[in-house]
Amino acid sequence: MAAIPQALDRELRALLGDAWLRDESDCLAYAYDNSRKLAVPDAVALPTTREQVQALVRACRAHALPLVARGRGTNTTGATVPVAGGVVASFERMDAIMDIRPGDRCAVVEPGVLNGDLQRALAAHGLFWPPDPTSADFSSIGGNLACNAGGPRAVKYGASRDNVLALTAVTGAGELIHCGSATTKGATGYDLQRLLVGSEGTLALIVEATLKLAPLPPARRVLRALYRDVASAAAAVARLMAQPVTPSMLEFMDGDCVRLARGHMQANGGGDLPADAGALLLVEADGDPDTLPHAIRALRQAATGEGLVALDEAVDDGERARLWAARKALSPALRTLAPGKINEDVVVPVSRIPELVAGVQALAREYALPIVTFGHAGNGNLHVNLLFDPADAGQSRRASAAMARVFALALSLGGTLSGEHGIGLAKRDSMPRAITAPTLDLMRQLKSVFDPDGILNPGKLLPP
Amino acid sequence: MAAIPQALDRELRALLGDAWLRDESDCLAYAYDNSRKLAVPDAVALPTTREQVQALVRACRAHALPLVARGRGTNTTGATVPVAGGVVASFERMDAIMDIRPGDRCAVVEPGVLNGDLQRALAAHGLFWPPDPTSADFSSIGGNLACNAGGPRAVKYGASRDNVLALTAVTGAGELIHCGSATTKGATGYDLQRLLVGSEGTLALIVEATLKLAPLPPARRVLRALYRDVASAAAAVARLMAQPVTPSMLEFMDGDCVRLARGHMQANGGGDLPADAGALLLVEADGDPDTLPHAIRALRQAATGEGLVALDEAVDDGERARLWAARKALSPALRTLAPGKINEDVVVPVSRIPELVAGVQALAREYALPIVTFGHAGNGNLHVNLLFDPADAGQSRRASAAMARVFALALSLGGTLSGEHGIGLAKRDSMPRAITAPTLDLMRQLKSVFDPDGILNPGKLLPP
Repeated sequence: MAAIPQALDRELRALLGDAWLRDESDCLAYAYDNSRKLAVPDAVALPTTREQVQALVRACRAHALPLVARGRGTNTTGATVPVAGGVVASFERMDAIMDIRPGDRCAVVEPGVLNGDLQRALAAHGLFWPPDPTSADFSSIGGNLACNAGGPRAVKYGASRDNVLALTAVTGAGELIHCGSATTKGATGYDLQRLLVGSEGTLALIVEATLKLAPLPPARRVLRALYRDVASAAAAVARLMAQPVTPSMLEFMDGDCVRLARGHMQANGGGDLPADAGALLLVEADGDPDTLPHAIRALRQAATGEGLVALDEAVDDGERARLWAARKALSPALRTLAPGKINEDVVVPVSRIPELVAGVQALAREYALPIVTFGHAGNGNLHVNLLFDPADAGQSRRASAAMARVFALALSLGGTLSGEHGIGLAKRDSMPRAITAPTLDLMRQLKSVFDPDGILNPGKLLPP
Repeated sequence: MAAIPQALDRELRALLGDAWLRDESDCLAYAYDNSRKLAVPDAVALPTTREQVQALVRACRAHALPLVARGRGTNTTGATVPVAGGVVASFERMDAIMDIRPGDRCAVVEPGVLNGDLQRALAAHGLFWPPDPTSADFSSIGGNLACNAGGPRAVKYGASRDNVLALTAVTGAGELIHCGSATTKGATGYDLQRLLVGSEGTLALIVEATLKLAPLPPARRVLRALYRDVASAAAAVARLMAQPVTPSMLEFMDGDCVRLARGHMQANGGGDLPADAGALLLVEADGDPDTLPHAIRALRQAATGEGLVALDEAVDDGERARLWAARKALSPALRTLAPGKINEDVVVPVSRIPELVAGVQALAREYALPIVTFGHAGNGNLHVNLLFDPADAGQSRRASAAMARVFALALSLGGTLSGEHGIGLAKRDSMPRAITAPTLDLMRQLKSVFDPDGILNPGKLLPP
């Protein structure tokens, strides 16, 4: 574990003043993220300028001290837990929206801006930034970019990597680099900005981002389709994705999820989910009031087919909330099953969803633990949730073993480890199964170019 | 200049048989691209398997021999001209469409497949691959990816980089790497596939690509809007891009282009362009027959405003051809002005288009050469065409000097050197004006990781 040399402590206190925290109780707030892992840093820096970030990186490098960038710590993989000690650089004070340029469909922001705050500022201009992680209201743009955050809208609009035009960043060598340009097309040298997105703070610290914006659709409509079984729902997903109207959301729940949601809704005096539903799709379209009815008709038609049990459409906000209720009931319903939950977001090609779900159900039986599957079906990005009691050593062991099998299953179906949560610590040791040895070796060498002394977020993303 | 050592010649003849060309007349066909530059390679390899590509790279590396990957040589920047001699690896025999998976909206191809051949195969499944360079019928997917080719559809669908899911490639170190996965979402380690796209064969040779496909829209409609001046047209572009219906094409012609096209059309007995038009927009929407009228209505409304002179709409293919005639007349009309043409595809933020066009017109006057501007306005990706007589030394000098000023102008407006043509040799020496020294230095170090001995396409993209 690292410790802060006295000379460095003096240097950084002079640089940062009261934005250099050494008190353990202050540091504790930066010790964890949404992964339930915890490691208290030796110090926390709250820089306010890119010059401070650059000086901080150079100082840490001079002392070979680990430096972990942090947005708001909402990631689920341990990516921001300072497991090697050292300094956490929290970007909470670099939270300016520097420029919104509606005519150029872009915004320039500091990394600490919260996604939700940005969306509210953009809405005034009739624009939005597409990435919509569940944590949007309290996660930062810098964190969204570092983890390539997605969300349900990614099926139509892409994830963070698809919605960034340019980044300014400080490498682990302490160099300020400018990647990309504020234009929606570019063929000028190597694409460094998309390489930084999803690199989880292991290559460089983002100090400014130019984001690609989309026009805010004035209206949305939702369909709720219930199917006899997962195979019927998956076939509908393939049909929905093969026709020209791309839904703005396409969410899936397996039969266990539907049963859990139905029980939760009934216990709370509501719900309208039929008993014979073995899978559910929520299909949303966005657009203007003129074209939306046609879009929804095309989606209805694609959703209709073998195994459809019921198809409901919402035309107003109240109806929309009623149809989304099943999805919203899922999280509280899952909490009633067991005190512990592992939520992994594997991805498979859309056509392999039935095999993934069937395989997960077989693993649930084999390991005698409830595992349910739901998520962003249009991207094949499914959240596999395993419920267990962390206080029970046997269950914990079985949970780990089952999740390793889930990863292996997703990979065997031509998928990958993560669609939007990232790797961090949680999936780091599975990387050699997803990425070939020469490719991993190349990634390690790239890391060495950006971060020659390995000070940036050591122990994350790349296996030891 | 390189020469082929005898031992290497024997080794590669044994590996490739009659796919190893040494005859100078054979090699001449691989000496040039669409840049009018020429350098005859010492040998040409026509590999048919990834194993051959890997063996070829390793053999060239062992002898420190330059190796230049080539699709069909349609690029305009000299990116495939073997200026340092050595071996050209042409992928024309690796042209299999390996898999089309409509349910997963992806196709797996070898690099030598022609864009046009792929589009015809995909159309049978109701799908297409969005990149649509002018050369689509005779340019290869590998070349499209190497140069990050775009085209008019990029305004809605993105360029090559936005439409690739996974790549298999051989690095300059001779390692076979697998980048990305056949899924539309991924947060599993560093994004290497988008780094390879646009790297112009300087990092690795692509041997397989998994492409992201889009559903083929069943119908298209086009608007032709004429404006009093460029500022009015640019304001319309900003309005068009700020509302929710993104056009599938949004092409611009400046006043000189309109005059040239009008003259050419009249000389050929046709044309309907009013005399007072100082700028033209072609606005295309795609979709299904139900929603298209609404989309066009929204686009009409956005196109309408201060300075609009005429607005025409095409409802059938004949009408569509009539409205596109002005754009099609432009290339032959330009040829009548001067024997030589430099066509550079700078990009600026959409809001800066008027300043770019005005600045280009000022440069035309200053250097006493015709320069016209047209192109993909929705992305701010404008083709600046300078007409001159290459036989006239004074004109040639002024042409070079004027184009350097065009690059400086685009950069000063927050733009970049290229939107879809790339850097190659043509813009290599301008890179230090577009990319900061620390960022360029990082790019050089990345190149060294992929290509430790600098054998892949030496002299391209990165300035010496």
